[in-house]
Amino acid sequence: MNIKMIGRFQALILLLEALFMLPALLICLFDRDMRAAMAFLYTVLLNAAVAGVIYLLCRHSSREFYQKEGLFCVGLSWIVMSLFGSLPFMLSGEIPRFIDAFFETVSGFSTTGASILNDVEGLSRGILYWRSFTHWIGGMGVLVFLIAIAPAFGKKDGFTMYIMRAESSGPSVGKLVPRIRKTAAILYIIYIGLTVLDLIFLLIGGMPLFEAVCTALGTAGTGGFGVKNDSMAGYSPYLQNVCTVFMFLFGVSFSWYFLLLRRQFKTALKDEELRLYVGLAIGSMAAITINLRGFYPTLSETIRHVAFQVSSVMTTTGFCTTDFDQWPAFSKVLMLGLMMVGACAGSTGGGMKCIRWLLLVKNLRRNVKSICYPQRVQTVRINGKTVPETTLDNTNAFLAAHVIIFAISFLIISIDEFSVTTNFTAVISCINNIGPGLEMVGPTHNFALFSPLSKLILIFDMLAGRLEIFPMLVLFSRSAWRKR
Amino acid sequence: MNIKMIGRFQALILLLEALFMLPALLICLFDRDMRAAMAFLYTVLLNAAVAGVIYLLCRHSSREFYQKEGLFCVGLSWIVMSLFGSLPFMLSGEIPRFIDAFFETVSGFSTTGASILNDVEGLSRGILYWRSFTHWIGGMGVLVFLIAIAPAFGKKDGFTMYIMRAESSGPSVGKLVPRIRKTAAILYIIYIGLTVLDLIFLLIGGMPLFEAVCTALGTAGTGGFGVKNDSMAGYSPYLQNVCTVFMFLFGVSFSWYFLLLRRQFKTALKDEELRLYVGLAIGSMAAITINLRGFYPTLSETIRHVAFQVSSVMTTTGFCTTDFDQWPAFSKVLMLGLMMVGACAGSTGGGMKCIRWLLLVKNLRRNVKSICYPQRVQTVRINGKTVPETTLDNTNAFLAAHVIIFAISFLIISIDEFSVTTNFTAVISCINNIGPGLEMVGPTHNFALFSPLSKLILIFDMLAGRLEIFPMLVLFSRSAWRKR
Repeated sequence: MNIKMIGRFQALILLLEALFMLPALLICLFDRDMRAAMAFLYTVLLNAAVAGVIYLLCRHSSREFYQKEGLFCVGLSWIVMSLFGSLPFMLSGEIPRFIDAFFETVSGFSTTGASILNDVEGLSRGILYWRSFTHWIGGMGVLVFLIAIAPAFGKKDGFTMYIMRAESSGPSVGKLVPRIRKTAAILYIIYIGLTVLDLIFLLIGGMPLFEAVCTALGTAGTGGFGVKNDSMAGYSPYLQNVCTVFMFLFGVSFSWYFLLLRRQFKTALKDEELRLYVGLAIGSMAAITINLRGFYPTLSETIRHVAFQVSSVMTTTGFCTTDFDQWPAFSKVLMLGLMMVGACAGSTGGGMKCIRWLLLVKNLRRNVKSICYPQRVQTVRINGKTVPETTLDNTNAFLAAHVIIFAISFLIISIDEFSVTTNFTAVISCINNIGPGLEMVGPTHNFALFSPLSKLILIFDMLAGRLEIFPMLVLFSRSAWRKR
Repeated sequence: MNIKMIGRFQALILLLEALFMLPALLICLFDRDMRAAMAFLYTVLLNAAVAGVIYLLCRHSSREFYQKEGLFCVGLSWIVMSLFGSLPFMLSGEIPRFIDAFFETVSGFSTTGASILNDVEGLSRGILYWRSFTHWIGGMGVLVFLIAIAPAFGKKDGFTMYIMRAESSGPSVGKLVPRIRKTAAILYIIYIGLTVLDLIFLLIGGMPLFEAVCTALGTAGTGGFGVKNDSMAGYSPYLQNVCTVFMFLFGVSFSWYFLLLRRQFKTALKDEELRLYVGLAIGSMAAITINLRGFYPTLSETIRHVAFQVSSVMTTTGFCTTDFDQWPAFSKVLMLGLMMVGACAGSTGGGMKCIRWLLLVKNLRRNVKSICYPQRVQTVRINGKTVPETTLDNTNAFLAAHVIIFAISFLIISIDEFSVTTNFTAVISCINNIGPGLEMVGPTHNFALFSPLSKLILIFDMLAGRLEIFPMLVLFSRSAWRKR
C-alpha cells in the first residue's frame, strides 16, 4: 500500500476543502455572524495546518499506485473530508453533537440530503451555504475536481484513472477524451454550466439569490438539502417545475451531454440507459397520477407534484413539494422501487443506477438463453457493444454487496425499535442517497430520532452508496491493510 | 423442445397424484363424509382419464432431452399438479372459489403454508389430510419421487438428472451414488424415516393420531399447514419442542444425513453450510431471547417460543406458537432476515438457502481480494473444494432474479392498498415459502384479503421460490417456446 501517496491526497483534499469554505466564511462576515465566521475560520486554519503536516510527512512517496490504492484513497478521503467538513457545524454551535454534525456532513457530501435538523430555517446563511455546497462538490466528486485542476496530475494518467473510476458512479467509467485530466475538466465544465443555467431559471422565477444558489447547488448534486423547513413546497409552481426539470437533467449521464456537445445526436438518442431512465420516469409518473385520482384538487396539481416527486426520487435528490408518505400504498411502493433503481451512471444521482438493472436483466436473460441454446455462446450487449464479463461480474457482486449491507443495516437500526417500514425505508433512503423515506423518516420528518449507533450505520450506508460500495469494502478489508 | 416426452411426464404426474389422493378418499369414507369423498373420487377419475389421454397422444417421443426440457417439464408439472390438486377443495365446496383453491394448493405443494382459510378446523379430515400431504410430497419433490419408483427411468440417467436438478433445491445438486434413481430412492428413504420418527415422537406426547400424521407431514415438508386455527399454540410444550427439533432437522441437507449413514462424521461436522445454519439459528435465538426480555412470564417460555419460531422461520415451515408480529422491531426484522436466508440446500426447506449466502459472501470477498492482489488468481472454496465459476454465476443470477421478482411482485400487490409492511412481508413470505408474514399477513391472519390478481402473483412467487426460479423463467421465456 502506497500510504505516502494516499497521505498526500488527503493533504490536498483538506486544502481544497479549506478553499471551498472561504465563500461560506465571506457570507458569515457579510451577515456579521461572527460566531459562524469564527467556526469557518478555525476550520480553514486547522485544515491548512493538518494538510501541511501530512504533506511534510508524506513528501517522498513511491510511484506505485494501483486499483487498490485508488479505492482505498477515495474511501479514506471521503471520511477525512466529512470529519473536517463537520467542524463548522459543531464550532458554530448550530449542530453541537459530533454524531449529528458528522451525519449531516456525510449526508451532504454523499448527496443524500437526509437531515437531523428540525428547523433548517434557524441556521445561519453561511452554514446553509456550506451544507448545500457539500452536495455540489460531492455530486461530481472532490477527487475528480482535484484531478481537473491540479496541474501536477497532468501526466500520470495511470493513477488518476484509478481515482476517477473509484469516485465516479456506474459499473464502467470511461474516458471522454484520451487524457484523464481533460475528461475531468470537461465533466466539471458541463456540471458548472448546467448549475448556472438552473440558477438563472430560478432567479427568473423570482427566487431570492441566496436561496436560488443553495437550491441550484442542491439540485445539481442531486442532494436534497433545502433552505426551507417545508423543502420546496412553499415555492411557486414555476419554481417547482424548474426544479423537476433540472433534477431530471442532473440524473442523466454527463458523458451523454458530451455526446450532445459533439453533435452525436443519433448515438445519444439510441442510448439504452437513457431510454430506460426516461421510460421509467414517464411510466411511473403515469401510474402514480392514475393511482392518485382525487388526491389533489386538480389534475394539473397532481401532475406537478407527481412529476416533481418522481424526478426527485429517481435522481435520488430528495426535495419534496408534498408528503408522499400520505399517498396510497401502490404509489409509495413504486417510489421505493424508483429509489432502488436510481439515476444514470455517470450522473450526480445515486441509487444502483439504471444501467446496472439493465445489465442484471440482460444477464439473467442470457442465463435463460444459454439453458435453451446450450451450444451457442451468449453475450450481453449494451448499445450494440458486448459488455465485458468482468463488468457483469462486478455488477453481480455489487448487487450482492448492496443486499448484504442493506440487510445488516436494516437489522442493526431496528434495535431502536421504530416501525419496520421506518427502518426499511431509512436504510433504502441512505444507501441510495435519497434523503426522505416513509413513516418516521418521511418527507415531513427527519433522522434526528435515531440512536448514535444507528446514525453511524446510516453514515456508513450513505458513503457506501455514494462511492458504490467497493471503496468502503477495500478500506475496511483486512487484505488492504496487510503487507503483501 | 421434446413436447411428447414432457407430456408423458405430465401423464405420470397426474396418475401419481390420483394415487396420492386415495388415502384422503379412504379417510372421507371412514368419516362417512360423502361430499368430500365424491370430490376426491371425481378428481381421481378425472386425473386418470386426462393422464390416459395425454399418454396416448404422447406415446412416441424422441429421446432428446436436455436441461431446457428438464426445467420446462418441472415448471409445467408443478402447475398441472396444482391445478388438479385444487379440484377436491372446489368440488367438496370447502374452498369454492378457484383462485383460493389454487392458491391453497400451490401453497401446499410449494411448502409455503400460506392459507386463505379463516377456519381450518371447519374443514373435513380428508381435505385436511390432503392439504398436509401436498406439503410432504412437495417438500422432496414429486418428480424425484417418480424417478425413485418408476422402473422405466432406471437406465436413462441423462434426463433424470436434468429433472432431479431442476426440482431439487440448492445451487449444485449432486448424486449421492452413481445411479440417479438410487439417489432419489435414498433421499426418499431418509425422508420417510425422519417423518416416521417425528410421528412417533408426536404420538408419545399424546397428540391424536390424525393430528400427528398431518403435523408430521407438514413438518417434514417444512410446509406449515396445521389442523388447528391457532397453529401449534394449543399444544403442550413437549409437542412444541418436538416440532422445533424436527423442523430444524428437516432444514438440514439430506445428503448430510447420507454422510452420517455412511459414518463420515468428520466430513459431516466440518460442513460449512451446516455450520452457518446452526450458527445462525443459535445466534438468532440468543439475540431474540435477549431482545424479548420481559415479553413472556418466564425465561423458559421465552426460549421455547423463540426456538420454535426461529426454527420455523429459518426452515421456512411457518408453524406458530406465538404471534411474533407482536415482538419488538429488532426481533421482527431478524425474523425477516432469517426468512431470506432460509434452510440448507438439499433439504425440504425453502428460502435462498444458507449455501447461496455463503457463496455470495465468499465471492464478494474474492472480488475485494482480487482488487488487492491483482496478480493472484482467486478461487472460491467450500468445504475445501473449489466452486466452479458456473455455480457462482448461477448464484449471482439467482440473486438478481430473486430481487427483480420480489420488487415487481411487491409493486403489483400494492395495488390492493394494504400497508407497506403487509405487502413487503407477504411477498417475502411467499417467495421464500414461509407462510406467515407481518401485520395483515401475520401469524394470526391469512391471505384471504388479497385480490385475485395479487393471489396470482403470490402463486407465481411461491412456485418460483420452491423451484428456485429458473424452471419458471424457462417456462415463461420466449426462447423455450420458439423452435430452434
